[in-house]
Amino acid sequence: MARDTRTERSSGNEGVLRARLRQGLRRLTGTSPARAAMMIFAVTIAVFASLLMMPWSTVAGRSPEFHDALFVATSAVTVTGLTSVNTADHWSFAGELVILIGIQVGGLGIITIAALLAISVTRNLGLRTRLVAQEGGISTGAMGETGQVIRTVVICSAVVEAALAMVLIPRFIHLEDDLASGVWHGLFYAISSFNNAGFVVHSGGLDGFGADPVVIWTIMAGVFLGSLGFPVLFMLWRNRWHVRRWSLHTKLTLQVTLLLLVVGALLYGIMEWSNTNTIGEMSVWEKVQNSLFASVNMRSGGFSVVESNMENSETMLISDALMFAGGGSASTAGGIKVTTIAVIWLAFLAEARGDAESTAHGRTIPASAVRVAVSVVAMGATLVLISTVWLMYITGLDMGRPLYESISAFATVGLTAGLSADLPPEGLYVLAALMFAGRVGIITFAASLTVRQRSRVRYRYPEGRPMIG
Amino acid sequence: MARDTRTERSSGNEGVLRARLRQGLRRLTGTSPARAAMMIFAVTIAVFASLLMMPWSTVAGRSPEFHDALFVATSAVTVTGLTSVNTADHWSFAGELVILIGIQVGGLGIITIAALLAISVTRNLGLRTRLVAQEGGISTGAMGETGQVIRTVVICSAVVEAALAMVLIPRFIHLEDDLASGVWHGLFYAISSFNNAGFVVHSGGLDGFGADPVVIWTIMAGVFLGSLGFPVLFMLWRNRWHVRRWSLHTKLTLQVTLLLLVVGALLYGIMEWSNTNTIGEMSVWEKVQNSLFASVNMRSGGFSVVESNMENSETMLISDALMFAGGGSASTAGGIKVTTIAVIWLAFLAEARGDAESTAHGRTIPASAVRVAVSVVAMGATLVLISTVWLMYITGLDMGRPLYESISAFATVGLTAGLSADLPPEGLYVLAALMFAGRVGIITFAASLTVRQRSRVRYRYPEGRPMIG
Ligand SMILES: [K+]
Ligand SMILES: [K+]
Repeated sequence: MARDTRTERSSGNEGVLRARLRQGLRRLTGTSPARAAMMIFAVTIAVFASLLMMPWSTVAGRSPEFHDALFVATSAVTVTGLTSVNTADHWSFAGELVILIGIQVGGLGIITIAALLAISVTRNLGLRTRLVAQEGGISTGAMGETGQVIRTVVICSAVVEAALAMVLIPRFIHLEDDLASGVWHGLFYAISSFNNAGFVVHSGGLDGFGADPVVIWTIMAGVFLGSLGFPVLFMLWRNRWHVRRWSLHTKLTLQVTLLLLVVGALLYGIMEWSNTNTIGEMSVWEKVQNSLFASVNMRSGGFSVVESNMENSETMLISDALMFAGGGSASTAGGIKVTTIAVIWLAFLAEARGDAESTAHGRTIPASAVRVAVSVVAMGATLVLISTVWLMYITGLDMGRPLYESISAFATVGLTAGLSADLPPEGLYVLAALMFAGRVGIITFAASLTVRQRSRVRYRYPEGRPMIG
Repeated sequence: MARDTRTERSSGNEGVLRARLRQGLRRLTGTSPARAAMMIFAVTIAVFASLLMMPWSTVAGRSPEFHDALFVATSAVTVTGLTSVNTADHWSFAGELVILIGIQVGGLGIITIAALLAISVTRNLGLRTRLVAQEGGISTGAMGETGQVIRTVVICSAVVEAALAMVLIPRFIHLEDDLASGVWHGLFYAISSFNNAGFVVHSGGLDGFGADPVVIWTIMAGVFLGSLGFPVLFMLWRNRWHVRRWSLHTKLTLQVTLLLLVVGALLYGIMEWSNTNTIGEMSVWEKVQNSLFASVNMRSGGFSVVESNMENSETMLISDALMFAGGGSASTAGGIKVTTIAVIWLAFLAEARGDAESTAHGRTIPASAVRVAVSVVAMGATLVLISTVWLMYITGLDMGRPLYESISAFATVGLTAGLSADLPPEGLYVLAALMFAGRVGIITFAASLTVRQRSRVRYRYPEGRPMIG
């Protein structure tokens, strides 16, 4: 009895504390959960940038340039992986640890915030749509409360990362013949891959491990799982291969992900087959393995065994499209998201077939979902266009590399055309802003669009159909 | 009485003839009016390519290369203006006349076919939507029958072209001090500008007339009027400035056209202000005039006073976006069309505001219009991407110029980054295919999507809303 009373009292205190905290946050950030999410991310980036500004963060033992610290902190927290300085050469072990923690916090933060926004969306949408949203894996019954969501996300991440580390740590110990460095590298790549961060702690990148299938396939698996997104992972965890129980969101995400994966690997393989700067001189098996690795990582992982900059410029253009597409919603991957592509494709199919509504897997996709999808694509394309023009102006380069770097930042991919390492501060700030917009902007933008869907039926205007095409 | 009988009999004969012709055409082309339109265009291009293959068509008196004849014929009939050989230097007067007739036939053909497709769409859509389509200026009451439409289009074109010629002919006679060449040039530019063809018959292009405001402003007016499209011109003709009587289509077309015009001129002016290769050394007034001229022509006219190739590459990227946008529906301009952009923008606005439907000027835009718009954009982007990759592969160039040339072909603009003149035949064929797809493909594609809109209400699936973003 005594124990129960104590628990009640403490949860009462917690309740008061939580209410005050919430009130304070609300005053700070305005009432919109979307705006709150952006504030939280901005503050987190500022904290990690401050930590990287410490003298102990660099190998040289001096404070780094402010723009480098801000850029790398943004890149870590948004799990992008673009760097203005070589991670292994520039940052001390402490600095690398700060980056790793930044990645973990950022990765968890994104998934959590996306999941919470989805819930707040379902609340605002009323019961009917809320039931619908359960289909998206955001089941209010199973884990409706904020704390529950965060706990599930953290446990899910920890389990996958631990599994990855258990493969990578022994392998790195074996490869590097050193216990401490093996553990550190195994841990780093486990976290970096599941969070789709693309950061590497070897000064030559992954070049040295391109021939090691264990490292390559484990990192690929980590990136792939991370890019599916929490709702899909959770759905798969609960329902395994009972495809009929999968939600529409899960089905669409898996379909588009696998399609893009195969198409990306095929195109990469075909176009780079005899490029001696990339995979041209490898064995057939290695060519296949590296094409798959490149394809997985284009869609937000950001790891590379061969330098993107050495690819044919046609390959880079194809990569542009795949990077822009990105991964799953509420995942550590960026881009416009695969469900956005699915919704647009389904809309096209419905038109081509002459159906009045777009449907998939026995579900009708509401017209407003098409409008949100189109808005997300339009926003992304506009931001990338502006950034590309700006980087072209700064660097004097033709559009190929500035476009690649801009899309890589917007879609938080982290593959580089070699620009980030050479850009002046004003270029780095633009890319940092793009990473922020691509990571936090897209999810909050989509959520705030969706949440505003009120079903108010006012006076309905007569239809007007302008000619199209 | 006798006269009446004769008329009846002859119209009876005509009716039989027409029915047979229709039957034959239908057998040839299948049942779809969209497919018929594509066949008609393909045959027209073949005819003009054959005429250009004649020895008398060239200055040298020899048959030209087949790929040049096909490319130029396609460029003329699709009113694009890209050329693989210098028009003035390569073709004889007879050859130039063939090109001019090709432009006129192609320009009239496009407007007519687009208008007819719109009518066939309205027929298939049933009475309700047909009433709606009247709003688009395709009033079945005023000019419902095929013959009536063609007659109106021809008269409308003839009136505007005659007005343009009446300004240009005296001016060219004055400038060139030669009656024959003045008449020919005035006529050529009148037709070329209203049809947004972008062909020039001076070997140095319009460079020599860049300082002549009469030529510049008249061509600009011709391009602008042609790019509005027949439904808008007709609506303006009937209702003048009684804005309230304008259709939704007219309002949206004018709004987006003017917006893009101003934005394009401002961006061009700002970015090229001190580029000495383009407008850098001109007077302020000439800079303004040329910025406006460039902006009007980017959106499908294709005339240039300064070489596009000399522009900053940032300017070319901005041009890419404006070229892709294009002009009005059922106009001589290409691109995805300004109403497509309007519909997408309105969909975005509706989402941002939280409205259940997108509306404009007191009209509800049906959800299927958004889906057609998105399909058109997706189709255009895919074609341009494929062509760009192909041209990069052929030429070994970075993406800037291949992208510019591909968009110019797809949107039938005719501005060149210098590629068309140097491409091998396999590059020219790709661009020719793109001109064809951009001109005939987009309108038939949009029409056949719209016509398939059946309002069949089958079993309605429950809603499923995948997460987006
Ligand atoms: K990344
Ligand atoms: K043109």
